Amino acid sequence: MSPPVPVSVGVLASGGGSNLQALLDAEADPDWPARIAVVVSNRADAGALERARRHGRAAVLLPRRKDQPREVHDQALVQALRAHGVQWVCLAGYMLLVTPVLLQAFPDRVLNIHPALLPAFPGLHGQAQALHHGVRVAGATVHLVDGGCDTGPIVCQGAVPVLPGDDEAALSARILRVEHRLYPMALRWAAEGRLRVEGRRVQVDLPAGEATSLWDPAP
Amino acid sequence: MSPPVPVSVGVLASGGGSNLQALLDAEADPDWPARIAVVVSNRADAGALERARRHGRAAVLLPRRKDQPREVHDQALVQALRAHGVQWVCLAGYMLLVTPVLLQAFPDRVLNIHPALLPAFPGLHGQAQALHHGVRVAGATVHLVDGGCDTGPIVCQGAVPVLPGDDEAALSARILRVEHRLYPMALRWAAEGRLRVEGRRVQVDLPAGEATSLWDPAP
Repeated sequence: MSPPVPVSVGVLASGGGSNLQALLDAEADPDWPARIAVVVSNRADAGALERARRHGRAAVLLPRRKDQPREVHDQALVQALRAHGVQWVCLAGYMLLVTPVLLQAFPDRVLNIHPALLPAFPGLHGQAQALHHGVRVAGATVHLVDGGCDTGPIVCQGAVPVLPGDDEAALSARILRVEHRLYPMALRWAAEGRLRVEGRRVQVDLPAGEATSLWDPAP
Repeated sequence: MSPPVPVSVGVLASGGGSNLQALLDAEADPDWPARIAVVVSNRADAGALERARRHGRAAVLLPRRKDQPREVHDQALVQALRAHGVQWVCLAGYMLLVTPVLLQAFPDRVLNIHPALLPAFPGLHGQAQALHHGVRVAGATVHLVDGGCDTGPIVCQGAVPVLPGDDEAALSARILRVEHRLYPMALRWAAEGRLRVEGRRVQVDLPAGEATSLWDPAP
């Protein structure tokens, strides 16, 4: 019996796309249930577009036109995603706010990763916020996107220690390691139909031996 | 050479006092640098008072009189603490808000423990708040008390997983295990003069091999 057809995924990224790379790397597993069909970026210089091309995936540049409402931008975005048969959307360092146009086209099917243990430190520079606040435990969160800023139902979280002497770069690197483990995990569950939203909580039909949280103490 | 005289500690508690017990148990170590001199409670039925008596410590009942300002209550509290030579104060399930009267009498010398990874879920029922929000990582925080509600500079934090099927009792029990490890750790550093407040951050002159964060995955 051949494995089931992988779910088509669209990744939205504004930057280098190291989380995109983690998702691409996960596809090396022959049983991986998701395949990135298209990467869309608002920035021509996004490393993520180059990564997509290098892996033979569609790379779509969709700059944000300031003279247009965000909704019009998202209509074009939805069109691009649908043109590639996308079923799930992953935000990976995507710096534009998404509108209900995207969320209604992919209801409860847009994932985001955020470099903090939400609900603490939403918005920009979660790592710097954590350092400034003096917390001892930081981390990352994969969540479903709702209308708010980093407020949607949480799929999984990974925690890391904040160590004495950490600066933003050191803490960000430690959190990024966790991000690269969390995002493939969450996407796999999504693609396998294991996520069920109940109010603001996500129930995961977990494979045996897996967990929705992890701790990574390594520097 | 005899060991240095332990620092005198006052514990304020409104309930059973399991964190008080953890601090008392820590004194079994002959080199332990802190000794609980007095336990003060606002409730006559607080198990913490009974625990104090059982361990031969002063137990002071100081009920809150609704016809008095909180500041007047805290003046009596400071008097009771000073009468026992208290140098550091530990809040352990103390359900009254403390006023500047206490904080000015013990500047940067009042510790609190809170059952959440602050700044997430301050206030009452941190564990239930975490469950309701659907987080995957919860925990506890020891912090210095400032004028706000669970806002003071953080000394140490312990993280635990939130597991599928957790109810408030199960999660609270998991967090409590971590609390019982965190509070003695923080008090020892305090008593040994290892804490230095810088703005809203606490620098800890950490003993070798120790850390300001921990992870406890056990149920």
